[in-house]
Amino acid sequence: MATSGSETVLPIREGEEEKKAEQQIDPWDVQAGRDENGNVLAFDYEAISKKWATKLIDEDLLQRFERLTGHKPHRWLRRGLFFSHRDFDRILDKYEAGEPFFMYTGRGPSSDALHLGHTIPFSFTKWLQDVFDVPLVIMLTDDEKALFKEKLTFEETYKFGLQNAKDIIACGFDLKKTFIYSDLEYISGPFLTNVWEFSKLVTFNQVRGAFGFNESTNIGRIMFPAVQCVAAFATSYPEIWSDKPTKERTKALAKIPCLVPMAIDQDPYFRLVRDNAHRMRYPSPKPALIHSKFLTALQGAGGKMSASDPNSAIFMTDTPNQIKNKINKHAFSGGRETLEEHRELGGIPEIDVAFQYLSYFEDDDEKLKKIEDSYRSGELLTGELKKMAIELIQGNVKEFQSRRNAVTDELLRQYMTPRKLEWKGNPNPKPKESKKEKGAAA
Amino acid sequence: MATSGSETVLPIREGEEEKKAEQQIDPWDVQAGRDENGNVLAFDYEAISKKWATKLIDEDLLQRFERLTGHKPHRWLRRGLFFSHRDFDRILDKYEAGEPFFMYTGRGPSSDALHLGHTIPFSFTKWLQDVFDVPLVIMLTDDEKALFKEKLTFEETYKFGLQNAKDIIACGFDLKKTFIYSDLEYISGPFLTNVWEFSKLVTFNQVRGAFGFNESTNIGRIMFPAVQCVAAFATSYPEIWSDKPTKERTKALAKIPCLVPMAIDQDPYFRLVRDNAHRMRYPSPKPALIHSKFLTALQGAGGKMSASDPNSAIFMTDTPNQIKNKINKHAFSGGRETLEEHRELGGIPEIDVAFQYLSYFEDDDEKLKKIEDSYRSGELLTGELKKMAIELIQGNVKEFQSRRNAVTDELLRQYMTPRKLEWKGNPNPKPKESKKEKGAAA
Repeated sequence: MATSGSETVLPIREGEEEKKAEQQIDPWDVQAGRDENGNVLAFDYEAISKKWATKLIDEDLLQRFERLTGHKPHRWLRRGLFFSHRDFDRILDKYEAGEPFFMYTGRGPSSDALHLGHTIPFSFTKWLQDVFDVPLVIMLTDDEKALFKEKLTFEETYKFGLQNAKDIIACGFDLKKTFIYSDLEYISGPFLTNVWEFSKLVTFNQVRGAFGFNESTNIGRIMFPAVQCVAAFATSYPEIWSDKPTKERTKALAKIPCLVPMAIDQDPYFRLVRDNAHRMRYPSPKPALIHSKFLTALQGAGGKMSASDPNSAIFMTDTPNQIKNKINKHAFSGGRETLEEHRELGGIPEIDVAFQYLSYFEDDDEKLKKIEDSYRSGELLTGELKKMAIELIQGNVKEFQSRRNAVTDELLRQYMTPRKLEWKGNPNPKPKESKKEKGAAA
Repeated sequence: MATSGSETVLPIREGEEEKKAEQQIDPWDVQAGRDENGNVLAFDYEAISKKWATKLIDEDLLQRFERLTGHKPHRWLRRGLFFSHRDFDRILDKYEAGEPFFMYTGRGPSSDALHLGHTIPFSFTKWLQDVFDVPLVIMLTDDEKALFKEKLTFEETYKFGLQNAKDIIACGFDLKKTFIYSDLEYISGPFLTNVWEFSKLVTFNQVRGAFGFNESTNIGRIMFPAVQCVAAFATSYPEIWSDKPTKERTKALAKIPCLVPMAIDQDPYFRLVRDNAHRMRYPSPKPALIHSKFLTALQGAGGKMSASDPNSAIFMTDTPNQIKNKINKHAFSGGRETLEEHRELGGIPEIDVAFQYLSYFEDDDEKLKKIEDSYRSGELLTGELKKMAIELIQGNVKEFQSRRNAVTDELLRQYMTPRKLEWKGNPNPKPKESKKEKGAAA
């Protein structure tokens, strides 16, 4: 891949002798590969999918999705940002059969504001929730973040979690069918019992392999995968299914499958739960997964927007001016060194970050195609392309901020209250007429 | 040690080649040592104390206890059944200074009824609670038992726990100052946050050493020590200290020390918490410990009453006749082979199980001394000694059963409800006059 015309080249990290490196992806560390000169390569998502034996999302699957739901696949499906899955087709079977399922996604609260990259899985999940009309649980892993970040306390991550939840709510989730919870606040009883039951099925050797732990790893980290795993069991949330959960219903609840939209780096957790779900006392189906790529960092392919590097990311708190400056200054360009060269050779949309961002947020396929063609031909200049991306992202962030301003502490508390959710496919609908009936009986 | 006259000799366990063995004591395995002929030896409690660097309870400590509390030390202290401690003297300092402390003990519910050996630490704890007038929490480790007993489910251990709690209540604890909880039912919020915080301080290597884990140990077992450890922190129970617990009080609560009466085999847990208590965000003092020996099995010294061997133990559900038969048939005797020999050589109280049981339950020191002398002289026969033990234990069990019959589900629920406890030294007493004052103000 051409890297000429680059405004920024990711530096080789200090102290490293081997320049060439394989990409490294696990839930706590995401590094793209590097070539023999030490240049960072783009993530090779097909290679990850192959290595982990996930299925790539193909045209057939998307056509079936559209046929069954009556919805055109989201642009992030059409354009491969969500690119891989496990058993998503079985969730479509459930949908087709009118059988219940639920969705689960999460956020590790390591800072107090989301960046654009964080909002994408949530916006996608919200869209899926609207299409499927199913209950959704959103886990804030404040426990995990304090366990894995040496300097963060549980008090801090809990507070970050509450702030993040407000951002998540601003992505537009329907209150009636969405339960957001902090692990530190919510986990107890049935959920905690599931955690222990799951932890009995998994040895240190197994998590060591899956997560790269060693003998000096703290015991909290070793235990934590059980928490993230059992969050995919419907039995962990008896309240969302019924006003009066009973033990008798647990076995039936266990059979309700889960769909987890997530970034590909979280896959190791779900391999673990998929390997063990059938071994629970009340056996559960393997959770289905739908994997996203990482939102490209401003610095370009091979980077990942990161909360700890302010210049890598557009934050949802950024002003229009900050957005403009960040993209103009930091967004890796696929344009050429000089105007003449650009007019002659054309830009390279594949490595151009502004173009990538346009492709995330411009829903109109035809319009996007025209932009791409025009850029590739050399007609459209980098500055013009960036301007389009800036405007689109400014608009997106502005809308987000306006929704975010409406999220009060009171509303937050409503989303975070364990309660029966309401949705079309609810197998145990709320008897809305009960008051009337009481009146009639009296 | 003479083993002549024995009615039962503990068999060498099958498949073992080495006859001689060191005693082995940890929270999950208690085995007395064996001599070169494979005969089981008595537990060597001084050796355990020395190995684990605990302090033996001496006459000075008991005299100070009596001076401060005005109570004669319990016979189990006088006779060395509670024989060892860590920092018990510092608890006495607190008592002397009128400063708050609390007590914590527990039970691993692996069966649905307690035996006589189980009730001893509880009866002793009840006595200490009466003497000190302090709050007490009693933990039912239903989580632990299901993690460590392959065949037990969490549902079963939870149920066992509720039954055990009724037995524990029958030991006479004051409802106003006692909170009993099931781990699976109670743990959440502040307690669970303490568990995670503690787990961040401890590595796999550390618990491997302390508890004999290995790489094939399940991750729940690896995590569990953190649960048992933080149960010794006052911050794990904000409700027992205040009607309206606030975060601001957490730091002050953390400083309230804990006294843990327990069998010596649980010491490894508390070494771990004593090593790490000061490293918590709100540093806590090292919990103080007071250690008991094991209640000798019917089969004699070197055995431990065990719920899984019905002939080793007197169960609290046994009928007077069952008690009589068990002691007559199974209690290891320190008497001689023949009447003539017994009259000539005398009995050996030190190895006589009936005599040991008498010493646990006969409070009158003089009376006990007379029995001992008479048995040692050959005057008192084994049958007569057993009769005394039988009557004393029958009486003890009968009283227990009558209290146990009075424990309703309703009463159980009261003990198990998280609530503000009330005691003399309560640093935050309930304003009993508030109603009156309200009335006066109105």
